[in-house]
Amino acid sequence: MASRIDHLGIAVRDLEASEALFGALLGTESQGREVVETEGVEVSFFQVGESRFELLRPTKPESAIARHLEKRGEGIHHVCLKVDDIAAEVARLREAGFQFVGEAPRPGAGGCQVAFLHPKSAGGILVELSQGEH
Amino acid sequence: MASRIDHLGIAVRDLEASEALFGALLGTESQGREVVETEGVEVSFFQVGESRFELLRPTKPESAIARHLEKRGEGIHHVCLKVDDIAAEVARLREAGFQFVGEAPRPGAGGCQVAFLHPKSAGGILVELSQGEH
Repeated sequence: MASRIDHLGIAVRDLEASEALFGALLGTESQGREVVETEGVEVSFFQVGESRFELLRPTKPESAIARHLEKRGEGIHHVCLKVDDIAAEVARLREAGFQFVGEAPRPGAGGCQVAFLHPKSAGGILVELSQGEH
Repeated sequence: MASRIDHLGIAVRDLEASEALFGALLGTESQGREVVETEGVEVSFFQVGESRFELLRPTKPESAIARHLEKRGEGIHHVCLKVDDIAAEVARLREAGFQFVGEAPRPGAGGCQVAFLHPKSAGGILVELSQGEH
């Protein structure tokens, strides 16, 4: 069971310009940047209550975020839900007929374990599950 | 300043089927339905931590959700941020160059005051601000 929205992943073209925009919109500052080599992205995040807005800029033309920008432009790319036991959640959801993209669970940024549900089986939304600290 | 993500608004075609899907996905049950005549939608909501997933089914072919379903299919329609003083936030954001859709603020569902930022000025995201209880 999901305990909270961990973050919204937002595809952006220009990280500096988008940090200024979301900083003004949310009335707060970026808490820092991180490059996630395996996903081909540079991330900048803003805390909002118990959740975060994560700006995602592609670092490689073949990254999922680059493809999203080409096809759909800037905007929400995925929603991440925090779970306590990701292996149990993946098993429970597979049993219920949900489909995952790639290996699930697998290591993510910041020592988390993550899994991605296919949008076709999750109401048109790319849903990430995450266990562990940010 | 936004205190939390109040809800994610999700466009759906079939409320009953989507309630079953999101109930299974989130591991919880819908907390109830509400028809919002002025917006042409029937809503069903699921609590996730301090936020909600709000499923939105159009009740009229000319509603914004019906148009979203036609153009983009099912998926995330908007993100709502809770604010303490919406009049002050609208003024602050207008001053910073953000553009709003329609009257802002205006009465929303459940006695809230709401305002919608145009996606073109908010990183491709339809952002709702809301003041007051759900």
